[in-house]
Amino acid sequence: MVGQMKSILFLFIFLVLSKTVISARKPSKSQPKPCKNFVLYYHDIMFGVDDVQNATSAAITNPPGLGNFKFGKLVIFDDPMTIDKNFQSEPVARAQGFYFYDMKNDYNAWFAYTLVFNSTQHKGTLNIMGADLMMVQSRDLSVVGGTGDFFMSRGIVTFETDTFEGAKYFRVKMDIKLYDCY
Amino acid sequence: MVGQMKSILFLFIFLVLSKTVISARKPSKSQPKPCKNFVLYYHDIMFGVDDVQNATSAAITNPPGLGNFKFGKLVIFDDPMTIDKNFQSEPVARAQGFYFYDMKNDYNAWFAYTLVFNSTQHKGTLNIMGADLMMVQSRDLSVVGGTGDFFMSRGIVTFETDTFEGAKYFRVKMDIKLYDCY
Amino acid sequence: MVGQMKSILFLFIFLVLSKTVISARKPSKSQPKPCKNFVLYYHDIMFGVDDVQNATSAAITNPPGLGNFKFGKLVIFDDPMTIDKNFQSEPVARAQGFYFYDMKNDYNAWFAYTLVFNSTQHKGTLNIMGADLMMVQSRDLSVVGGTGDFFMSRGIVTFETDTFEGAKYFRVKMDIKLYDCY
Repeated sequence: MVGQMKSILFLFIFLVLSKTVISARKPSKSQPKPCKNFVLYYHDIMFGVDDVQNATSAAITNPPGLGNFKFGKLVIFDDPMTIDKNFQSEPVARAQGFYFYDMKNDYNAWFAYTLVFNSTQHKGTLNIMGADLMMVQSRDLSVVGGTGDFFMSRGIVTFETDTFEGAKYFRVKMDIKLYDCY
Repeated sequence: MVGQMKSILFLFIFLVLSKTVISARKPSKSQPKPCKNFVLYYHDIMFGVDDVQNATSAAITNPPGLGNFKFGKLVIFDDPMTIDKNFQSEPVARAQGFYFYDMKNDYNAWFAYTLVFNSTQHKGTLNIMGADLMMVQSRDLSVVGGTGDFFMSRGIVTFETDTFEGAKYFRVKMDIKLYDCY
Repeated sequence: MVGQMKSILFLFIFLVLSKTVISARKPSKSQPKPCKNFVLYYHDIMFGVDDVQNATSAAITNPPGLGNFKFGKLVIFDDPMTIDKNFQSEPVARAQGFYFYDMKNDYNAWFAYTLVFNSTQHKGTLNIMGADLMMVQSRDLSVVGGTGDFFMSRGIVTFETDTFEGAKYFRVKMDIKLYDCY
């Protein structure tokens, strides 16, 4: 009886200690697993190149001439986010925010924006910021906060340019991975 | 004696396991409870409409003409935050940052700013960003970081427009709820 | 035997409970210890005052006249970050983002930017925002997110102005302290 209890006790010690270790360990660098993960497409249709009816973004500053890659061009957007590549699909969210170009010898941008969800599936927002290193095929920005269904979320958004049609339209695949979910 | 110990052991197992479960569980979606919560009023007094003496914010871009709701108007502010609705009350903090309008068929804005506290009560800052969906009565932005007394804080700020006096002055009730406190 | 087991059991209870308490306690306010800490120097060389060849930043708006301290001047930058004070040292990162001046009766600024690391030592980004209270010797901004080697990082960046050479060049010592490391 005492022997049996000793076994239970030590099994228990082992279980609790391993649990403690697991809960203390943050997601490992190599293989963190998101608690939520979804892919959306961002469509940017520029005013001035396209008309008021179609446009969803507009430049509000002119590049001051530091290089030939639009350094300092600041764009405000209220762009549709869709689950497929068709910009005319019903949006599942709006991306509201801004980007600007910020490199003098290549195209490079910086984004800060909010994904606004208002559907039967999701209500709430995700707040995102980071560098859009356009010369890199796949680049990561930070999800720095969320509200509503995404209360206090954090994570990563991976950008991949899907298409670029001159100054008029471009589309970015955004792979949204949340690691803090409530 | 052994029976008594068994009882203690199993009570203990129960207690530890329930503790583990509680500590593993993040604040529930339905009823998270802030560790700090306070309401402040934000007062925005626009330069150009009001004079240098009174003004606390200024537009730095002109709307490029995408719709009739000031899309692309970018405003920099250093606005007083007070505990009551009187903009002449002694400020308990400054709100330093910017907002811009970003919708072509209604008023809608986007904010990023820092609350700077420098009183006997609070020293430090809170950093905030998110969409200000002006057509919604109550909307949430993210507290993405903090310093000083608010070291590493995160949370939600709920905006409610309190008054809107044309282009000259508006006041927003900001309900600040922090869920990560150190 | 039973007495010995009782001792083990109570020692164990003590150990587990103290562990639980420790893991529940967040870093104390007075003495949080960063999991990563490094100092870098930020060099801002302004276009228009310096030429295209040397410049790494450019103003994209003109101050609208609210006071005499450049209120509303918005600057986009892609600035080198070095480990010493020499702006010609090999950069260990780029700082990509923007700042603007936002006070009518003194110099005061607001920053949002990404540190982009792409060396053998570090790959990844840190996303930072906050008020730069220039009249204060040492001021804190928030690290609100990170990617790559800095996956999901949060922390504080402490700014100290190192030198200020008129409108052409300034250097800021940035002490980067991360408290969430993965």
